[in-house]
Amino acid sequence: MWVQREIMLRPRPRGFHLITADVESELPELRSLQVGLAHLFIRHTSASLTLNENASPDVRRDFESYFNVVVPEDAPFWTHTTEGPDDMPAHIKASLLGPSLSLPVSRGRLALGTWQGVYLCEHRDHGGPRSLLVTLFGEE
Amino acid sequence: MWVQREIMLRPRPRGFHLITADVESELPELRSLQVGLAHLFIRHTSASLTLNENASPDVRRDFESYFNVVVPEDAPFWTHTTEGPDDMPAHIKASLLGPSLSLPVSRGRLALGTWQGVYLCEHRDHGGPRSLLVTLFGEE
Amino acid sequence: MWVQREIMLRPRPRGFHLITADVESELPELRSLQVGLAHLFIRHTSASLTLNENASPDVRRDFESYFNVVVPEDAPFWTHTTEGPDDMPAHIKASLLGPSLSLPVSRGRLALGTWQGVYLCEHRDHGGPRSLLVTLFGEE
Repeated sequence: MWVQREIMLRPRPRGFHLITADVESELPELRSLQVGLAHLFIRHTSASLTLNENASPDVRRDFESYFNVVVPEDAPFWTHTTEGPDDMPAHIKASLLGPSLSLPVSRGRLALGTWQGVYLCEHRDHGGPRSLLVTLFGEE
Repeated sequence: MWVQREIMLRPRPRGFHLITADVESELPELRSLQVGLAHLFIRHTSASLTLNENASPDVRRDFESYFNVVVPEDAPFWTHTTEGPDDMPAHIKASLLGPSLSLPVSRGRLALGTWQGVYLCEHRDHGGPRSLLVTLFGEE
Repeated sequence: MWVQREIMLRPRPRGFHLITADVESELPELRSLQVGLAHLFIRHTSASLTLNENASPDVRRDFESYFNVVVPEDAPFWTHTTEGPDDMPAHIKASLLGPSLSLPVSRGRLALGTWQGVYLCEHRDHGGPRSLLVTLFGEE
């Protein structure tokens, strides 16, 4: 079974956002997959995907604080500055976290750990809607 | 061919640990795969997986030193602190390195480079056993 | 359909290099894939792959500047120093960015976003040629 579908994520403020439910609700075919993988791919270079704690909103806030410090907007070495001070740091953050997630599927469900959730990492001040291309494959 | 199996990794001290042999020994089906992928997925948010040098233990020690400096426990901006000073840095390290590895399989073996080995990255002081969900698929 | 092929990348200077066209031109089978994935895997521990902006060379230059600052060659804590000052930072950079990319394939093409390109990240001063193992799979 191969299913490929674009999911448009509504615009979110800069920061880290839990989107596990948004993704699952757009993939009814998940239920008929006995074993497989779900590949999530964000088609942008200034937003990214990661997996982390799905419970405390503190964790997502601390992610935003950390990445703002480790990839500062005012670093003296940036030369790609025409698109605004948040642009080049957004590109770096996107590559540090990565554009895709491959998640195991087991008996009709994403086989995540108890505390794992999918984060949309929005690195721009005004990123707009984001396109996710999801590829689901495996054995029914 | 699709095989999916949980591998329980015994508790390891905080740091970076070579686990290539632990993984291969739990996957006898690898030998019958002509071409495919092995997807390793850690079901936790404070430990991670990466691929790096399989020879010198110095490299793994330097990984631990580096990540402790670049993700400090005493940063003033952490707000998620109730689970101990090693918790929030562990979440960040886990996302910087990532929860999964997709490794090519070729003629019955993981097709790694000569110097590549699988690291379990244990970011907590007392992480306990770690669950790895391995999905093996391809052509026999 | 499963295709697996080694692509040898010619030596490049230390830095970030756009290689999307090099990869596509070595994969004629891409055209016959309706839906699938292309898995790119670099078989080294001091070079890596990432996806980022395919337009401005400024972005790639700023990547090199950033990673040189965040993973300094003269950090006092490096102990793995026998292979030169660029070696241990190269290992760290390789794990921060990662050894592989899984790219969706749709109707005979890599389904990248408009601005996304594949980067070879060469972290050594004299890295030499680099081996990429590409695994293409999906439905015709």
